[in-house]
This record gives sequence, C-alpha cells and structure tokens, in this order.
Amino acid sequence: MREPRRPDTAFWVERSSVLGDRLTLDPSESRHLLQVFRATPGTPFEAVDGEGEAYDCVLESVSNGLATARVIGRERDRGELPASVRLVVGLPELGAAETIVQHAVPLGATAIDFPPCARSGRGPLGEERLERLRRLAKAATKQSRRTRLCPIGSPESLEAAVSSLGSGAKYVADPIVRAARNDGISPMQPHVALVIGPPGGFLDRELELLRGLGFQAISLGPSRLRTETAAIGLLAVVRNYLI
Amino acid sequence: MREPRRPDTAFWVERSSVLGDRLTLDPSESRHLLQVFRATPGTPFEAVDGEGEAYDCVLESVSNGLATARVIGRERDRGELPASVRLVVGLPELGAAETIVQHAVPLGATAIDFPPCARSGRGPLGEERLERLRRLAKAATKQSRRTRLCPIGSPESLEAAVSSLGSGAKYVADPIVRAARNDGISPMQPHVALVIGPPGGFLDRELELLRGLGFQAISLGPSRLRTETAAIGLLAVVRNYLI
Repeated sequence: MREPRRPDTAFWVERSSVLGDRLTLDPSESRHLLQVFRATPGTPFEAVDGEGEAYDCVLESVSNGLATARVIGRERDRGELPASVRLVVGLPELGAAETIVQHAVPLGATAIDFPPCARSGRGPLGEERLERLRRLAKAATKQSRRTRLCPIGSPESLEAAVSSLGSGAKYVADPIVRAARNDGISPMQPHVALVIGPPGGFLDRELELLRGLGFQAISLGPSRLRTETAAIGLLAVVRNYLI
Repeated sequence: MREPRRPDTAFWVERSSVLGDRLTLDPSESRHLLQVFRATPGTPFEAVDGEGEAYDCVLESVSNGLATARVIGRERDRGELPASVRLVVGLPELGAAETIVQHAVPLGATAIDFPPCARSGRGPLGEERLERLRRLAKAATKQSRRTRLCPIGSPESLEAAVSSLGSGAKYVADPIVRAARNDGISPMQPHVALVIGPPGGFLDRELELLRGLGFQAISLGPSRLRTETAAIGLLAVVRNYLI
C-alpha cells in the first residue's frame, strides 16, 4: 500500500464548482486524485480553474466518487507571464501542432492559432483535431502549474488570424526566409503576437500582408528550423524578455 | 513521372569520399538522392560532411547504385553558430531525450550529454539507445543544413559530464528550483555550457557541485517546465544572443 503523497500536478476545477471555501472536482479529476495519487481526507493538493485562479486545497470528503476539498489559499494568475503572448503558426501536420501545444503552453502562450497558409497544403483543422489539441493544452496547463487555459484555434486563413490582433509587439519568423539580425526585439509590452511560417515557409504575398500589419521580421539564426522548433524557440526567447 | 527537383535536404558524405572536386555518396544516401528525389545527371544538391564543410554539388554519374557528383562550391561552417554550446541534460526517459535531440540539433547544440542524476532513477543510456539518438542527430543535421555533427553521450554521472568543461559561460536551469531573474545572462563567449535538471529536479548536493564549478543559476520563468521544454527553451534563448 502506497503512502498518500502531495500530487505533483494541479487538478482542474470549474469555477462554478467553487462555492465559498469549498470546491468539488468532477468525476474524472476526482478519480485521478483518489486513485492515481491515493489521496485520503487531509491530503493537500492544488486546483486551477483555467480562468486565472489557483486554489490550495485539502481533501475533506468523498461522496459518490466526487472529491470535495477545503480551500485554504488562493493565488491569482499564478504561473502566468505579465503579458499576453499570442502564437500564430502556419498550419503544419497534426504531430507538429501537438508538439507546439505541448511546449508552448508551459512556456506561457496565451492563445495558439493554426491558420492554413498557402504552403500548408490543407484546410483548417476540424473539430475533432482541435479537441485533441485542446485536451493537450489543458493537460499542459495543469502539469506546468499555470492557471489560465490557452485557447487553440484554426482560423480560416492567415489574414483572419492576424487582422484583428490590435496593438502590441508583432514579430514574424519564417523558418525559410532569413531576416537580418533581430536586434530590434523588445517585447516588453502587454500584448505580443508571434507569427511563424508553415513548413515550406510563407509566400511573398503572405509576408507582405504581415509587414503591412506592422509585423517585424526577425532572424532565427543560421540553420534551418522546422516550424515547430521555430515556434517553441521564438516563444522561449520572448518569454526570457518577460520574466 | 515526377520532375527531378532540387532536394530540400542535405546529403551526408564522409570526408574520405571527397576527392578533389568529385564526391561519392554511400549506398544509403545515393538511394535517397536517386529514388526519393529522382535525381538525374545534372540535378543540383548539397552535401555536408559533419566536420564543418558544405558542398554544392551537381550529380554527374551513377555506377553500381552510387551517386558521384561534381563539387562546384564549398562553404566552411555553414549553418553553425559562432560559439560552441554544450548541452548537459539530467537523463530523462528516452522519448524526452529524443525530443531534445530533434530540436536542439537544429538550434545549434554542439554536443549533448545525458548523465544520470539522482532523480533520473536509472543508469546511463546503453549503446543501442545512444545509437538511436545519434541517428536522430545526423538526420537533424542534414535537415537543418548544419555542417557539424553534434555528438551525443551519456556519461557515468553529472560530475563526469561537467567537471572537464573548461572555461566559458556556464548556466544551470533546474525545472524545479526557481532562481532569481536571469538578468545575468551574457553568453557571448566562444564556449557556453548549459545544464538542465532531470525530471524532478536536481538534489541540493548536485546544485552545490554545479555552483562550485562556476555555474550560474538562471530562471526559466513562473511556470514549471518539463526537462525537454527547459532544455530547448534555454538553448533558444542562448542562440538568440549568438546570432
């Protein structure tokens, strides 16, 4: 028989299931807490609601398989960066999109969109594939102890993905086109948007569109990166300016 | 029948197979060039030798399945960073090690070592697994158009991995321990060493060992990263200072 231990992941809780200083996990999260981590009344754990709140909890009771806990502390925006960082990635194959979600969520992306670009050679992701990516995003939020869920989308087109971004720092990195040195990077703004080209890179007219919207091209260095490596790497660079 | 096209990957050539302005690919690389890319005499392609030389080639002839090409240009250290960046990662599970190799090679790592640490819970990688990682490193070198092969090792211990590093910038990032702001990062040196903790993090005595050897702890930000995300992210940050 294993000892109960403090789980090393956070558990998901809908905000509507938090009532005063009590919260109740849903059946799936309850099962995870009670069966995988062998929690018993008194076991401490953390919950996050995906809307910016972290709850320090102590398991109080179990009823019909549902775990109810006492909330002994709250922290707002725990694990979040002080800026929103929106990632727009020219749609790659599904495996690459999964890789991006799995690394970009812990690195602090606040939204990820995968619009099909000219060289993507396919249409937007369907609901089933988006659901799969959203499950990965949720799991990564819990595992990385962030508190805000990162929405995942697949807009109709690059234009649809970038035309409503509003103000803020805007960078474009094309895995194919090699820009000049990126000594202009200065993303200490409340809103940052990063656009990464699809496998094969952007067409000239796509780069023109982005330049017209104020996107600054930055270099990713002397070797050629895959779309997923470029997306993760650029996000890590920007994160480093924000912490 | 498809048109021959300029391959979008480089081909591997042993330096001993380059004689004056002719080079011959080995059976496997010849098959790839001739069958996957349908090269015919006159098709241009690139070859790299893993020792820093890139060759611009034109296929000249095929004999017994071996492709022989004329070398029309050479470039030294094409795709390489102006510094060596050695990555030492506390041994994770094999899948995470593969992920690290696949992203860290394009991002310019010049050597990757996976020593077992206290929390790795396993011994060094055996030859078969190392061979698998080395094949991935070679494929990533060609795909990213680098010219130097990144050796992959699994030393006996953390101490063995870091004690012979010599001078240069030395940073340690532990996915668990949260250091102060990393405003001290300044890796513009010819040699940079990056150490990343294993899943579960370093023990205090391991961090003591690293501090004693001059490693500076740097923060990876407010959320918790997996070992592989931390390794790729830290390398991307350092790369950005070097390009």
